[in-house]
Amino acid sequence: MVTSVSGMQQLARRWARAGSKVGFVPTMGYLHAGHLSLVRRARKAVGVRGKVIVSIYVNPTQFGPREDFSRYPRDLRRDANLCRAAGVDVIFAPRDEEMYPKPGALAFSTYVAEGALSQGMEGRSRPTHFRGVTTVVAKLFNIVQPTIAVFGAKDYQQAAVVQRMVRDLNFPLQIMVAPTHRETDGLAMSSRNKYLEGDLRRQALVLWHAIQEAQRVVKESTETPNAARLKSSLKRLIEAEPAARLDYIEFFDPETLKPARQATRGTHMALAVFVGRTRLIDNARL
Amino acid sequence: MVTSVSGMQQLARRWARAGSKVGFVPTMGYLHAGHLSLVRRARKAVGVRGKVIVSIYVNPTQFGPREDFSRYPRDLRRDANLCRAAGVDVIFAPRDEEMYPKPGALAFSTYVAEGALSQGMEGRSRPTHFRGVTTVVAKLFNIVQPTIAVFGAKDYQQAAVVQRMVRDLNFPLQIMVAPTHRETDGLAMSSRNKYLEGDLRRQALVLWHAIQEAQRVVKESTETPNAARLKSSLKRLIEAEPAARLDYIEFFDPETLKPARQATRGTHMALAVFVGRTRLIDNARL
Repeated sequence: MVTSVSGMQQLARRWARAGSKVGFVPTMGYLHAGHLSLVRRARKAVGVRGKVIVSIYVNPTQFGPREDFSRYPRDLRRDANLCRAAGVDVIFAPRDEEMYPKPGALAFSTYVAEGALSQGMEGRSRPTHFRGVTTVVAKLFNIVQPTIAVFGAKDYQQAAVVQRMVRDLNFPLQIMVAPTHRETDGLAMSSRNKYLEGDLRRQALVLWHAIQEAQRVVKESTETPNAARLKSSLKRLIEAEPAARLDYIEFFDPETLKPARQATRGTHMALAVFVGRTRLIDNARL
Repeated sequence: MVTSVSGMQQLARRWARAGSKVGFVPTMGYLHAGHLSLVRRARKAVGVRGKVIVSIYVNPTQFGPREDFSRYPRDLRRDANLCRAAGVDVIFAPRDEEMYPKPGALAFSTYVAEGALSQGMEGRSRPTHFRGVTTVVAKLFNIVQPTIAVFGAKDYQQAAVVQRMVRDLNFPLQIMVAPTHRETDGLAMSSRNKYLEGDLRRQALVLWHAIQEAQRVVKESTETPNAARLKSSLKRLIEAEPAARLDYIEFFDPETLKPARQATRGTHMALAVFVGRTRLIDNARL
């Protein structure tokens, strides 16, 4: 485990010199099977002689003031064991003080912001979220200097925003987006599922059910479904669960993320739902 | 000369693999002796076996809508000859279409912005200037992947903003700031000096005279000079030249760039003056 930025950069320089491929999986820790599937992707991409790095860092700048930063689940020892078992070469787990120099005349003051793909959906619900994501991911890329970085498709918009950042700022690396990992009943894996106590775990399935319903409608309709009407019926389906409250559903072009008026095969769907106090997201291609 | 981003990144990867040090001098071209002094600094830093790269790119995003982007002087052939004579290994001269993908659904949309050091002085007079600078410099760093980058002290605030960006985003490189190169009469070298026709060239000396006057006052005063009063007297000195109009004078802490109420030894001074239609800047330590 490496905790200092300079220590990680020294390793990165040594690997560049050796010509080693470096596969990187940035995480906020509290690892689950979804994360481990990203680790396997990274290993496959860099080969047995490549290096696989997992960063574990609950990034404060991507949480809003009323979000769950302080109670976000953390268990570094458990994460380290999971990484070791998965064949990870190095865990990078930096401290806040080094990542974001503290207030005062020399405080942290530079942000990376994407201004198009990050505007809707998560960006509308969480106004400073993506600026925090792109900033910390840019930092991590400069620290770890990977040849390839693997992101999960569960955060579809995040992956799109990061890919745009990599293209626009010319980061010398490739982004790979790996499929969403689901529990056997269909719930998308997320560290936040830990919050789902009692019946909330069952009610959380409504995101997956809404996706399946949209896929069924698109497949079976004789005429192309209108997006607004489909949204309304899915909202009713979702809010039939007593603890579920819809934040948004969106149908959009999978590349530009531009909202679609009609839901057809190939249209992408994403949604965010509060289940109790826990905000969950999911998405899929229709 | 390399004009493609991918071509430059391939060279950078090869050099990293060989363990070569890479010294980088980003410029907007129309090179003068000041630029060439930065090239010598870069060479000295990386040694005879290192690589020295000069980028030549008139970056549109750092010009305001009413500024001199389209008439900024360009002469790539002359620049190439100067670089060759100065022992530069590679000139990187990218095209706009590749640096900033054009409007449309997939247009360029990611910016790097520093929010503290870039607020005053140049940032106040040119509101989007530093966002353009940090964005293009971040791009160039990701493309050229230097071990060291050399900036001129003539753009003092720019050098401070870039250093802050490098610290905040953890770019794996060192910034070197080289002293301002001056004509024998004291005028700071600048590609924009080309605009100074007829008597304007003589009047442009007033920036240097104002700096010298401030240095004299600080040295000779029995009590510490009040910054506001000193500004007023320097403004009178400057605007005694018929074509000169002061944009700003600032006295500030050289590290935090915070305005100083008093001008003492070690305080930094910067100023911007329109001489005719040409906007010139200069700065010095008092």
